[in-house]
Amino acid sequence: MNELAIDTDLALKMLTGFIQDEVTKFDVLRVVVGLSGGVDSSLSCFLGERALGPEGVIAIIMPYRTSSPASREDALLVVQQLGIKHLEIPITPQIDAYFERFPDADKTRRGNKMARERMTILYDQSVVHHAFVLGTSNKTESLLGYTTLWGDMACAVNPLGDLYKTQVRQLAAAIGVPEHIIAKPPSADLWPQQTDEGELGLTYAEVDRLLYWLVDRRLSRPRLEELGFAPAFIDRVVTMIRDSQYKRRIPLVAKLSHRSIDRDFRYPRDWGR
Amino acid sequence: MNELAIDTDLALKMLTGFIQDEVTKFDVLRVVVGLSGGVDSSLSCFLGERALGPEGVIAIIMPYRTSSPASREDALLVVQQLGIKHLEIPITPQIDAYFERFPDADKTRRGNKMARERMTILYDQSVVHHAFVLGTSNKTESLLGYTTLWGDMACAVNPLGDLYKTQVRQLAAAIGVPEHIIAKPPSADLWPQQTDEGELGLTYAEVDRLLYWLVDRRLSRPRLEELGFAPAFIDRVVTMIRDSQYKRRIPLVAKLSHRSIDRDFRYPRDWGR
Repeated sequence: MNELAIDTDLALKMLTGFIQDEVTKFDVLRVVVGLSGGVDSSLSCFLGERALGPEGVIAIIMPYRTSSPASREDALLVVQQLGIKHLEIPITPQIDAYFERFPDADKTRRGNKMARERMTILYDQSVVHHAFVLGTSNKTESLLGYTTLWGDMACAVNPLGDLYKTQVRQLAAAIGVPEHIIAKPPSADLWPQQTDEGELGLTYAEVDRLLYWLVDRRLSRPRLEELGFAPAFIDRVVTMIRDSQYKRRIPLVAKLSHRSIDRDFRYPRDWGR
Repeated sequence: MNELAIDTDLALKMLTGFIQDEVTKFDVLRVVVGLSGGVDSSLSCFLGERALGPEGVIAIIMPYRTSSPASREDALLVVQQLGIKHLEIPITPQIDAYFERFPDADKTRRGNKMARERMTILYDQSVVHHAFVLGTSNKTESLLGYTTLWGDMACAVNPLGDLYKTQVRQLAAAIGVPEHIIAKPPSADLWPQQTDEGELGLTYAEVDRLLYWLVDRRLSRPRLEELGFAPAFIDRVVTMIRDSQYKRRIPLVAKLSHRSIDRDFRYPRDWGR
């Protein structure tokens, strides 16, 4: 049984329609995508191109001096295959200018600063190009909190946010993302030899199955154990989801009035459009 | 009639309790505040100090080379008056490193990049100091969208988010923020001579009254006009609120599954704490 199998034709139709609707609603001409050369951002570029044509997508490649040259090559391959425009804006000068003050900063601090620097560049370029920022975060990393708050999670609209990593791969294969981009070990590439699965200490195949039954299907704890998930693994994943909930909400406002933002005053993002 | 008058004793009690609760819940030792020397960030520092003592607040002063020296002096005055620790981390090297590539960038692009750079520094420093980022955005600017998305709006928790600017001033006076900080024209200080009211083309006194009746009290359009608000002014403010709604929500995810983040999957920020 493959509970994570999706109807890729239907998903492609829904996601291209979603991108088209949002571009029209927010009256922009195109989308910018931070393209790392990984499967998520490659898929976002492919979806953007399918929805808006090659003129409708600008890929922004933002390497740091330690970023893998192979990642950049994969990014350029996507650009070439789709015939989309791209800009290469290294983040090295800005990042190094900051950490000159803090030479002892560890790799986590550096990685988070880099993810946030990329966000600031995407937003800056979105204004220049009359675009909005198309997101690249999948549901697995969002639920586990394996993301940088106000960094890679920040975007205008996200076509991948309801797809588990395993499903991102299915859709990427269906839309024609190069095979070796789909097959390579996922990595945030924030430091050399970093891989998602190594850092998380779990595999996407396994955690995606658990997340599906836990989150989407709301199975009880005994049922999850019946399906063969180890109690310690369930505990760990539930804790990761709970502990990262703050990353999936806007900042908490201290309530003092009749109507507070995100409590009583709460409308859809496209309210009035 | 002063519809914006608040019970400052009660508000201080609620807000210091709020900060104490959140610090306990998220198991941090203190808060970091981006201190510009304006009334909002000064008040956040005062509230933090009242809630946690002087050891509980670290003010981060982040000038750019065009920032007003008077702002910095006001920031240092707050630091001195409260006896809190502070760090001065200029953003000039990082900002200039980026805009070297884009020398023609206008002041809005530069201002937004600066606001976002400050966010990245606050988050970086919050990790170093086992702290969370205490917000400084008031309800007026949040509702009007007079903010930088993922910039000054980004924080862990915001004690000012339910106070209109006029009410921020009342509370600032009650808690002892220096008088001239309260009285000076509010400015984001992102470029010389910038003032909020000049840029917005309205006064806080006027717009706060309208926002109160419109948002908090949900008065109908005819009732607002009876209160003396000009139809064109009402239109303009309503448009500003609607057009900035996207800044008050997390990114929109294309729905594909049974439970999507921020739609069906939606819990409080402190879920499980």
